[in-house]
Amino acid sequence: MNSSRRWFLRLAAAAGGAVAAACRGRAPASQPQPSLLGAPISKYGDRSPYETAARLLNRASYLEEASSRTPLGDIQGMITPSSLHFERHHAGVPQIDPARHELLIHGLVERPLVFTVADLKRLPSVSRIYFLECSGNSGTNWRPVPQPSAQAAHGLTSCSNWTGVPLAVLFKEVGVKPEGQWFVAEGADACRMLGSIPIEKAWDDALVAYAQNGEALRPEQGYPIRLLLPGWEGNASVKWLRQIKVVDQPVMARDETSKYTDLLPDGRARQFTFVMEPKSLITRPSAGQTLAGPGFYEVSGLAWSGQGAIAKVEVSTDAGATWAPAALQLPVLPKAHTRFTFPWTWDGRETVLVARCTDDTGAVQPSRAELVAARGLNSTYHCNATQGWKVQPDGRVVDAAL
Amino acid sequence: MNSSRRWFLRLAAAAGGAVAAACRGRAPASQPQPSLLGAPISKYGDRSPYETAARLLNRASYLEEASSRTPLGDIQGMITPSSLHFERHHAGVPQIDPARHELLIHGLVERPLVFTVADLKRLPSVSRIYFLECSGNSGTNWRPVPQPSAQAAHGLTSCSNWTGVPLAVLFKEVGVKPEGQWFVAEGADACRMLGSIPIEKAWDDALVAYAQNGEALRPEQGYPIRLLLPGWEGNASVKWLRQIKVVDQPVMARDETSKYTDLLPDGRARQFTFVMEPKSLITRPSAGQTLAGPGFYEVSGLAWSGQGAIAKVEVSTDAGATWAPAALQLPVLPKAHTRFTFPWTWDGRETVLVARCTDDTGAVQPSRAELVAARGLNSTYHCNATQGWKVQPDGRVVDAAL
Repeated sequence: MNSSRRWFLRLAAAAGGAVAAACRGRAPASQPQPSLLGAPISKYGDRSPYETAARLLNRASYLEEASSRTPLGDIQGMITPSSLHFERHHAGVPQIDPARHELLIHGLVERPLVFTVADLKRLPSVSRIYFLECSGNSGTNWRPVPQPSAQAAHGLTSCSNWTGVPLAVLFKEVGVKPEGQWFVAEGADACRMLGSIPIEKAWDDALVAYAQNGEALRPEQGYPIRLLLPGWEGNASVKWLRQIKVVDQPVMARDETSKYTDLLPDGRARQFTFVMEPKSLITRPSAGQTLAGPGFYEVSGLAWSGQGAIAKVEVSTDAGATWAPAALQLPVLPKAHTRFTFPWTWDGRETVLVARCTDDTGAVQPSRAELVAARGLNSTYHCNATQGWKVQPDGRVVDAAL
Repeated sequence: MNSSRRWFLRLAAAAGGAVAAACRGRAPASQPQPSLLGAPISKYGDRSPYETAARLLNRASYLEEASSRTPLGDIQGMITPSSLHFERHHAGVPQIDPARHELLIHGLVERPLVFTVADLKRLPSVSRIYFLECSGNSGTNWRPVPQPSAQAAHGLTSCSNWTGVPLAVLFKEVGVKPEGQWFVAEGADACRMLGSIPIEKAWDDALVAYAQNGEALRPEQGYPIRLLLPGWEGNASVKWLRQIKVVDQPVMARDETSKYTDLLPDGRARQFTFVMEPKSLITRPSAGQTLAGPGFYEVSGLAWSGQGAIAKVEVSTDAGATWAPAALQLPVLPKAHTRFTFPWTWDGRETVLVARCTDDTGAVQPSRAELVAARGLNSTYHCNATQGWKVQPDGRVVDAAL
């Protein structure tokens, strides 16, 4: 065995020193020798007590405004653990007995029908991996006000393997009348969360979902059933779904007038802006994290678009002066988080890391300046501007607030 | 609103009655009206108390033989919830402090190196969705002995989104010598679980994985790091990985001689039979479940192959007399569980449901008779025969033991 020092030099010379610092060239150390048998098998596992990643709870005193954010700086891959999926509730999380829950579909239909949860599970199903993002996500990014972490700024997005019945199957059963052009989905929470949805989404890819990441929906995701509108703003994917009424025009519900609209500079408002536009975000390194010193780091992040699949992610390690393509981890799926990675050797000087993405419709994620030029500053919703992170010489990473 | 009876008749006539029975044509019922706010947001969510799906624990009195099985009849989609991922431990689950855990790579290498977990997380990573299956899975299916459930018979397979460092990255760092043709991976559990792996797998797709379904590996899956050999028998994907030694030939370890080999009729044994061959399985309906009566049911199941992607799944609802293609849920990925679905209307008479799959190498899942003809009956490992489920006139589903 040779000295650590020599390995370090050898490694630093190889491959542009890419991996050397991370390996640190230490001599093999002896490791703790467990002498005892470990824990037994279990019926339903839990994470290690050493793992503490948690949703960030908002400070609202009212359950009506409650939200919690996914720890984007901690999660890996494309699937968000169900236990860390973001939350946004308007009346808290109801506890529902699935044996007593039903879905009514009525309104402009030939045959109003009620489905039990057991009924739904017998019907033709679809399983897909889709992101879900709150339209209020990244709202602080409209203005250059530094945020403490990727989680705080952008944690209202998550990605799951969803399973459910295509709404189209149910709509064919009830027989939607020609004048049925919208439908109103209503939740069983105390606020009766509801929203108006164009009926085309039902014929496209809307699901009445009953499973998430292999098991039943989590209570905070709408157990036992929720609407799921792939690629659309999260509030429209009504949780604890109890009824769908087919109508001829939007009902102008509280949550589609008082919230989730975008007031433009000319005084008009964008409404029913359902589709979440392309966004990407570096999650490591990101604000609140600290680099151990100069050397190799993999830059990693997420990109997604409600319009389709991610076609390209570019990363800049010099505040946007130059860009290079990131690797996209497979599978790259439409309307799903896509994990991207990018090799980077930090020279120890202050710099800014930023990512931008392009989806397969050709839409490019805008800078903040570009987005504000187009939409003004009257809205807190639908912000998909790029996000820069400043790496300080001491290794601390902060919001670059570009 | 018209009578339930009329809806039922109308629906039964439509689309071959496919969905009618499931809807049951009941009049819309009023639903419980929650009057209270629900539960608040939380840092780390849990499932509904109404959900009770659990791993099936084996009856072994010794931790050295412990295993638990995924409830295949309950899970949905392609991702297995980490809490329900199957287990197979040889000395229980060690509790490891990741800050004190290291990976040593030595043997026939230029530069033996030690990596901390933090080192590994800085290095280039890969995220992929892969199944993991114990080579002992489906072992009871070598003989026509009825099993109580899909879980009991086949529950030693699960599928996760894994993230880790390609072993090739680490092997390039240590500089594998030309005579290094195998490597021996060793776990930090009390039994020092180890196995010999051909070095080609490192250059192909082997990972040192640190994340599963978005968060850190679960303790029972090797926290903080495990070897992951996509498509290969699970025992070779050594958990709680502590060292890798590059060698010139297999070390003939206990767990590659006393177990995981297949004695053939001629007295020779198949050894190092790493690749898990194509298998498919109907999970709903499956043994232990009960159908509510004649009518429409979606048949759903899983198919996978360690050789590549699933190309085709066929379903028979008449004990193999006729076959028809199932729909494959997207994405269909190499070395991953693929969810398949098939529409079926049960006429109320006894029948047998069975699935068979073909992977993209052209390999077809064999019947039990075909597999036994090729391999004999001396092994309990590597059984990928088809599995039939008998639906009895009373709706109960049992192992057809074809």
